[in-house]
Amino acid sequence: MKKIKVILPVNCPDEWLDDTAGSLNAVKDADTELSVGKIPWGPPVIEQHYDDIWAELPTLLEAEKAEREGYDGVLIQCAGDPAVRAIREKLSIPTVGLMEAAVHLAYILGRRFSIITTLEAGVAATEDLLRLYDCTTRCVSIRVLGLTVQELMDKEKTFDATLREADISVKQDRADVLIMGCALMTGLQDVIMERLGVPVIEPHIAALKATEDLIAMRLSHSRLAYRAPQNNNRTLPGGIGA
Amino acid sequence: MKKIKVILPVNCPDEWLDDTAGSLNAVKDADTELSVGKIPWGPPVIEQHYDDIWAELPTLLEAEKAEREGYDGVLIQCAGDPAVRAIREKLSIPTVGLMEAAVHLAYILGRRFSIITTLEAGVAATEDLLRLYDCTTRCVSIRVLGLTVQELMDKEKTFDATLREADISVKQDRADVLIMGCALMTGLQDVIMERLGVPVIEPHIAALKATEDLIAMRLSHSRLAYRAPQNNNRTLPGGIGA
Amino acid sequence: MKKIKVILPVNCPDEWLDDTAGSLNAVKDADTELSVGKIPWGPPVIEQHYDDIWAELPTLLEAEKAEREGYDGVLIQCAGDPAVRAIREKLSIPTVGLMEAAVHLAYILGRRFSIITTLEAGVAATEDLLRLYDCTTRCVSIRVLGLTVQELMDKEKTFDATLREADISVKQDRADVLIMGCALMTGLQDVIMERLGVPVIEPHIAALKATEDLIAMRLSHSRLAYRAPQNNNRTLPGGIGA
Amino acid sequence: MKKIKVILPVNCPDEWLDDTAGSLNAVKDADTELSVGKIPWGPPVIEQHYDDIWAELPTLLEAEKAEREGYDGVLIQCAGDPAVRAIREKLSIPTVGLMEAAVHLAYILGRRFSIITTLEAGVAATEDLLRLYDCTTRCVSIRVLGLTVQELMDKEKTFDATLREADISVKQDRADVLIMGCALMTGLQDVIMERLGVPVIEPHIAALKATEDLIAMRLSHSRLAYRAPQNNNRTLPGGIGA
Amino acid sequence: MKKIKVILPVNCPDEWLDDTAGSLNAVKDADTELSVGKIPWGPPVIEQHYDDIWAELPTLLEAEKAEREGYDGVLIQCAGDPAVRAIREKLSIPTVGLMEAAVHLAYILGRRFSIITTLEAGVAATEDLLRLYDCTTRCVSIRVLGLTVQELMDKEKTFDATLREADISVKQDRADVLIMGCALMTGLQDVIMERLGVPVIEPHIAALKATEDLIAMRLSHSRLAYRAPQNNNRTLPGGIGA
Amino acid sequence: MKKIKVILPVNCPDEWLDDTAGSLNAVKDADTELSVGKIPWGPPVIEQHYDDIWAELPTLLEAEKAEREGYDGVLIQCAGDPAVRAIREKLSIPTVGLMEAAVHLAYILGRRFSIITTLEAGVAATEDLLRLYDCTTRCVSIRVLGLTVQELMDKEKTFDATLREADISVKQDRADVLIMGCALMTGLQDVIMERLGVPVIEPHIAALKATEDLIAMRLSHSRLAYRAPQNNNRTLPGGIGA
Repeated sequence: MKKIKVILPVNCPDEWLDDTAGSLNAVKDADTELSVGKIPWGPPVIEQHYDDIWAELPTLLEAEKAEREGYDGVLIQCAGDPAVRAIREKLSIPTVGLMEAAVHLAYILGRRFSIITTLEAGVAATEDLLRLYDCTTRCVSIRVLGLTVQELMDKEKTFDATLREADISVKQDRADVLIMGCALMTGLQDVIMERLGVPVIEPHIAALKATEDLIAMRLSHSRLAYRAPQNNNRTLPGGIGA
Repeated sequence: MKKIKVILPVNCPDEWLDDTAGSLNAVKDADTELSVGKIPWGPPVIEQHYDDIWAELPTLLEAEKAEREGYDGVLIQCAGDPAVRAIREKLSIPTVGLMEAAVHLAYILGRRFSIITTLEAGVAATEDLLRLYDCTTRCVSIRVLGLTVQELMDKEKTFDATLREADISVKQDRADVLIMGCALMTGLQDVIMERLGVPVIEPHIAALKATEDLIAMRLSHSRLAYRAPQNNNRTLPGGIGA
Repeated sequence: MKKIKVILPVNCPDEWLDDTAGSLNAVKDADTELSVGKIPWGPPVIEQHYDDIWAELPTLLEAEKAEREGYDGVLIQCAGDPAVRAIREKLSIPTVGLMEAAVHLAYILGRRFSIITTLEAGVAATEDLLRLYDCTTRCVSIRVLGLTVQELMDKEKTFDATLREADISVKQDRADVLIMGCALMTGLQDVIMERLGVPVIEPHIAALKATEDLIAMRLSHSRLAYRAPQNNNRTLPGGIGA
Repeated sequence: MKKIKVILPVNCPDEWLDDTAGSLNAVKDADTELSVGKIPWGPPVIEQHYDDIWAELPTLLEAEKAEREGYDGVLIQCAGDPAVRAIREKLSIPTVGLMEAAVHLAYILGRRFSIITTLEAGVAATEDLLRLYDCTTRCVSIRVLGLTVQELMDKEKTFDATLREADISVKQDRADVLIMGCALMTGLQDVIMERLGVPVIEPHIAALKATEDLIAMRLSHSRLAYRAPQNNNRTLPGGIGA
Repeated sequence: MKKIKVILPVNCPDEWLDDTAGSLNAVKDADTELSVGKIPWGPPVIEQHYDDIWAELPTLLEAEKAEREGYDGVLIQCAGDPAVRAIREKLSIPTVGLMEAAVHLAYILGRRFSIITTLEAGVAATEDLLRLYDCTTRCVSIRVLGLTVQELMDKEKTFDATLREADISVKQDRADVLIMGCALMTGLQDVIMERLGVPVIEPHIAALKATEDLIAMRLSHSRLAYRAPQNNNRTLPGGIGA
Repeated sequence: MKKIKVILPVNCPDEWLDDTAGSLNAVKDADTELSVGKIPWGPPVIEQHYDDIWAELPTLLEAEKAEREGYDGVLIQCAGDPAVRAIREKLSIPTVGLMEAAVHLAYILGRRFSIITTLEAGVAATEDLLRLYDCTTRCVSIRVLGLTVQELMDKEKTFDATLREADISVKQDRADVLIMGCALMTGLQDVIMERLGVPVIEPHIAALKATEDLIAMRLSHSRLAYRAPQNNNRTLPGGIGA
């Protein structure tokens, strides 16, 4: 049995949790049990670095709770991988971010990948992740839909914009693999693969499989690379200790 | 059901097949079915580039046969990843090499990894793989046991040498993740992790999970990155066509 | 007149503010006016990624307040540069982090620099900053004192440890420039320079001069690189809107 | 008091000295005193490597004179940074080149910068500087006006060409910071910033602030990185010893 | 006397041997003696990785024979450099591949080179070579004629396509040096140089001169970099030992 | 017939010219004719950047003279490659520097090279050349004899120091190829190769063969990479025009 906590690092509508659960349950291993939750305060969506800062502290606290509750692994359900490195310092169970899992898969599947994301404002944060992961060499473009996360709810608009940018990525930037740059850009894999002939990576699926693999292999992040923090008197607003 | 063909790219004793099957079956998914085979001619072991050349053509032919026989994926059971790129050009089903899977896992688990391999003569081939995969930035050392692949059969000697080099990798080279550099260096993960406190990656396990993941996600290598070869009159010794 | 807000991104004793003010006032331009403050909640010190996450949100809020109050520039007084990129997305006035200023100065002053910091646990965060800044090529080592930020208060111990690590950096790692890796490692510049013959960069001094320069040149960060965030309903614990 | 010698590394008309003095005096610190001079022989302008070679020896000799005369710092007033590394070997006072100062500022202000320079023939020398400074990663283009240094005197032509290339740099190359690639491309900062919304760096201004900073921080280049030359019998044409 | 064995790593028509001999004899040193041969089985042409695998084993065996026969050096007459690294492990005499020689020459002749090759399917193998040689920094494009190796026999078609791609390489990709990406793209050097004003490297000529140089300097590849293989019982199809 | 001008970029004793001629004539092609000269003013030796600046202008003028006199190629006989890039801008005949030729040869011969040079003060200039040539990836160390160029005249001392540093380079730095870092470190190739088993590159020999090759192939540097300078009124001391 692999018990995995999936944390949406946003203070979002509850139906997002259901959608996420549905999408992940469709591809999970038979012996995987998923629990999907969200943060109790923070930003409603994450679109750029500014939102990361709002999201990371409550996400960290939720991840700590998940370990206390006995989960075997944590998946942070956002392609900006908020707080992942800090969570690894605190937790012993494997913690996986969407973009990190997706990018390494892209290296294996092809030679040149593009990331398709929502807004121009988020490109910088994505570039920064590639730098942090030392994975800049094979990303040939980061293309944007020009849609906010909220606007992704309009499935038809999202479909058209994604297909348009995917086409440019493959034909102009010569990408041979595509990564969907937001956890909400789901359900487009088959049609893009069929039309453009390139693998399409949905990062939350890639991250789920990576989390399952780590649990199955009884591996977790290196505690020499991610060292446990000191006990210190850290406080929340209103002086709540943590 | 995920049917995976595991090909040992060496003309080895049959007990190696059994050992490989045992080791992989212990961690496979419930719905995975493995078939382990070897090449009918070629080198008895792979220790350096020279052996790669002897192994790659028969390995390629075995992989082609596996696809014809209906397998869902192919795993090339050698940390030198022989013929993997060429196989991908010919096959549509996912094909995974041990080192490629291991290295990307190492990037996710830590910040600095070492590879521990058999002989000084094989270091160059391993370095070349890292260059091919654009994954040179986080490898801090490739250390050698000074044992031939044959000598790895002596489990005690292998254990002592591996522990010695693992210790140097962590303490002197400051590696925080270790990769076993030969598919035959198995069964040491737990003891090294316990003594040195760093994750140890057995590449054939990493490769098995990667192959299962790809099949589960219905993803394979990009056919724009790995393009199908022309039909040409290629011949084997004695003028056998292929 | 250049009005600069200096924000200590820690919930620290008030005497740290006085020390910081004293150290910065000694080298500021004649027409610079400094105001040194701290965050009202968060961690008492920053020693690694985990602390960054605790510090970044209150630091961001303090920086926003500084711009509303009419300051010409913001200096985040910590060598981990917490929240700097997110602050730049929100603010139009120049925002400078200590490590970023120090590293670019090190490139100009020499060819190989070392960073001397407090604890092994903080090395990863420092390495990550160098990756984010695309400044990994000239850092030859990050050496640690093995002292917590609290222990840095013991001036003698700090002096001895710093001199010891500086000596190793220059003689063994062949560094020709040194960066003090914590804003509290002050007052050691002259003695190290005299004994080892290499320039020593105190990052808060470097950051102050960089902030003054930007104001004097009427330059700020690019709003195409750091794009303004959307107005969204972001909340603090207890449901306080922000 | 910060006494800075500004050396134009060209044998130019005297009015260039006045223009330079005017431009620098407008942004200098209150306690900075500038002296602007030129070389007594050499090339009339610097447009490419060939001119560098003509300019570097007389520039070196002028810099040596400046140190003997008691200046606190030297600024080489050309974006090709001629002789800067050799001067640092001989001098103990800080020596700053325009491009080096500008490039590091560009890293701090944004994520992708373009350099706009005079002639195609000078692009190679600029690329070489970026290589020497290990600062190639964020330069997305070097664009040329197609004007000789002499033609830069035509202010209207220069204005039009600069605006044209700046526009291409931002919109096509996606630069978010611009560097003026010649010390004579002045007075365009405000209009370009206003029209294109990106910071524009005038390298001589950046270099002046960097020189002032170094003097204020009592820092100079590392003498381990820039080692003092041997006393040898070096001669000028006509057998003049030096 | 420099006796050089030229091995075409393809099972090709005999007239290819004559063409190769003619082309190489025209530029060889006076004291060089060339013997041009081919492999007795394998692929008729090499167009991508798949063909490399078919060609490498027989090429290796031919190279071993050449050393036994007393040649002073071996030249592998294909721009994919098949088996070169493995041959160096086995042989003590210098062994040169076309692309490796050509690429290093391109670095010396200019700053940005393009490679013009036959088919899109071969681009990946060429990119992989650049990675192996750590020579990715100056290649600005790999452009394809869209012709199979067989179609290169049509001289007029080849001429038109090459000129078309050379023109795009220089004008659009801003290459200042061109490398012909297939050993069969000969005789075009002068006309392209005349029309486009850039040096054109024919890789087999570059490789011949490199081989002659090594023999003249009494240098060969490092036996620490290319280590001798173990004696093992390697077999060919039909159980033929080797 | 290949007429090559060899320019010693130093104002040295005449016997250095004879030594150089002797050493080069021993390996030249049968149809090569060498003329060895020196500069009429400048530094007596080149040991670091400071000397480069003194040497480059007279070297440039000598190279221009050589082209006017009808030579087919120019070889700058110093491992610091002084003025080479500027000479290429002015001249159409091939111009070769020692280090550039040696480094590319080292890439071909092995995987990790060390450069052994004279003084610590010259290491920076050598590192800068590797950066300019984009060839930093395979240099594992630059080791120094601690001898001035003058002291190299003591053959025994030079022999001992070179062997000592070569040994450290191979055994400690794991170099598999060595480059002699000064044109005067000759005659040691055989003994080092014999004792340490690695190829030793004498850069002036490598440069001679490269120059001969370029002439034989009728290739020269790209005029798009090295563009012709404008006619301008450049002057020497005393107002001599040039």
